[in-house]
Formats: sequence, structure tokens, C-alpha cells
Amino acid sequence: MSATSRPATPGPARRTGGRSAAVLAAVRSAVEDLVSERGIAQVTIPMVAERAGVNPTSIYRRWGDAASMINDLATYRIAPDRPLPDTGDLRADLTGWAQELVEHFRQPAAAALLRGGAAAAGDGDSDCLRNRRAEATMLLDRAGSGLPVDEVIDHVIAPVVYRVLFRPWTLDDDLAARLVDRLFAGR
Amino acid sequence: MSATSRPATPGPARRTGGRSAAVLAAVRSAVEDLVSERGIAQVTIPMVAERAGVNPTSIYRRWGDAASMINDLATYRIAPDRPLPDTGDLRADLTGWAQELVEHFRQPAAAALLRGGAAAAGDGDSDCLRNRRAEATMLLDRAGSGLPVDEVIDHVIAPVVYRVLFRPWTLDDDLAARLVDRLFAGR
Repeated sequence: MSATSRPATPGPARRTGGRSAAVLAAVRSAVEDLVSERGIAQVTIPMVAERAGVNPTSIYRRWGDAASMINDLATYRIAPDRPLPDTGDLRADLTGWAQELVEHFRQPAAAALLRGGAAAAGDGDSDCLRNRRAEATMLLDRAGSGLPVDEVIDHVIAPVVYRVLFRPWTLDDDLAARLVDRLFAGR
Repeated sequence: MSATSRPATPGPARRTGGRSAAVLAAVRSAVEDLVSERGIAQVTIPMVAERAGVNPTSIYRRWGDAASMINDLATYRIAPDRPLPDTGDLRADLTGWAQELVEHFRQPAAAALLRGGAAAAGDGDSDCLRNRRAEATMLLDRAGSGLPVDEVIDHVIAPVVYRVLFRPWTLDDDLAARLVDRLFAGR
């Protein structure tokens, strides 16, 4: 298990301390591997604990059940503190940001985690893509754009997510640019 | 089990014959009830068979596993042969059709089935919303519209599905009309 000897990862993981960060990294990596190998429905907490070399109790304490664990890892799988595009042009920034989302979800493990997140989402305030919403809000605010963030959710994030879930073979190279162009059309 | 004494349901179910149609109706109703009562992850084929009063073997033969069963039922949950809006105006027809979709997915059992369908969707050609695509194609073709069906998928169906999965409390009364208006803006 190499994660324990890695330097602390930057951002939120670092804030939880070296030992917790190592456990989180090990669990995340075990979940990704197991989801790829067996499919999301077969992944259990004891299985993840064994693969990650951590005590199952630590996982149960943090997440309670496998669905919550997968939902949470799906949320954080794109580092929320990575640098965002900053070209000075909102359309270019949104395109770069959406392109990153498309490329991320082309990875089968990332798509499988999103499917698990969708299955685990419920009637409460769970929104496994809430970090993407925060990022879009930041890009719009920084540009002083009057575009409501819900427009970006409905017309950029939602079509990407729909394709990831139901039509992953349609995640074309030019999808991000096309959706962002459409977002600005007629405004 | 009252389904066996109901008249045959119209459409695809009828084509499979009276006995099969009754079994399908019983299974569908059992799945909806169990998903509402226990959540999708807990629903198994033996449990559905018991509730529906059918032999588990019939269910295994038809669907193979619980995920495929739920994915398939999610597909057919809106009757594919119901009449579609036909006002003579494409925008009004699309709005009525999208409104029906929103109202359907406001039902918690329908939303839960869609979540299960998302979880079970894979890398093949599974598309648990393929009937909606066929309907949108029909509406566009009938009106002689040059609008590509992918625009309706990306900008009407995808935002509705995204909200159903991740933000069900945002399925507002005016969502369908807003999305269809946006679809036509700038064209």
C-alpha cells in the first residue's frame, strides 16, 4: 500500500491530517479499482477495507454505508481545489472547464462512480455534483456575467452527465465547445 | 393479486399475450412498491417474485438480474404507445410532452426507478430513455422541423433527468416550458 508513504496531497485532504489523508487516498483508490473490476453493485465496505488495508470500522464511521461512501467519493473525485481556467474570456473558461469534465467522465471508473452517485442520490439535499455548481458560480461571478448558474447546470453539466450515464459513447471531443456555444446562442 | 383479472393492458404488453402481460403487470407493480418501501439497492428478484406471486424463474429468465429488470421497467414506465400531444404547433407539443415527463418523474417511485436505471446503465447500447428519444424524433419529424433530436435530448430531457436524479426538489411547474423556450431561443 504505497499511499501511506506518499507526501500529503494538497487541498482538503491535507486539512484532515496526514494519517486521515492516507486512509482516504487508500480507500478512494480501492473503491475505484473495485468498481472497475466488479461493477458498483458488488462493492461492499468490508471488501474496500481489505483492499485498502484499513479497518472497516474507520470506513463505517466516516460514511455509514457503501452507497454514501461511493456518493461522496463521486463528489470529490475531481479535486475541488485544482486551478480553474482563467483566460480572461468567460466562454473560453467555461469551455475549458466543461472539457475537463468530459475528459474526466470518459474514464470508466469515474463514470461508474457517477452511476453509483446517481443511484445513491435521494430526496434530501444530496447533490453529488455540487462542487461543479460552485465552480460554475465562481467562473460566472468572476466574469461579472449575468448568466444564472442554473443555465450552466441545465445546458452544460446536465447534458454531459446524461451522456455519461446513458450514452457514454457520445462524449465527443467537441461536445464541451458545442454546449458552451449553444449556451451563449440567442443571449 | 388483482392483475390477473384485469383486462389486457394496451400496447406492447398486449402483444406478449394475456398470461405474460399479467405477469409483467404484477412484477412491475411489485417493483414499484418495493422500491418505494425499501430503496432500490435492497430490491432482489426473490423478493419481487414473492410480492408479485410469480415464480422467480420467470423473472430470471426474462431479465437475468435485478439491475436489468429495474433498468427495463424504468424504460417502459411511461407507456410508449400513449397518445402524444398534437396541437399543430411544435413548441406547444414539445412543452406538453416535456411537462408529462416532469410530472411523471415527480412521483418518488418513478424517480427511484430512474436512479436504478442510471446505476444499471453500462457501456453497451443500453439507454433507459430510448423511448423518449423516439418520441422526440417523431414530434420533430411530424412538424418538419430541422431541429436535431440531440438538441432536445441535451437541452430538454437531460436537464429534467439531471434534476430528477440529483435535485428532485427543483422540478418546478414551469420547468418544461422554460426549457422548451430556451431550446428555440437564438434559432
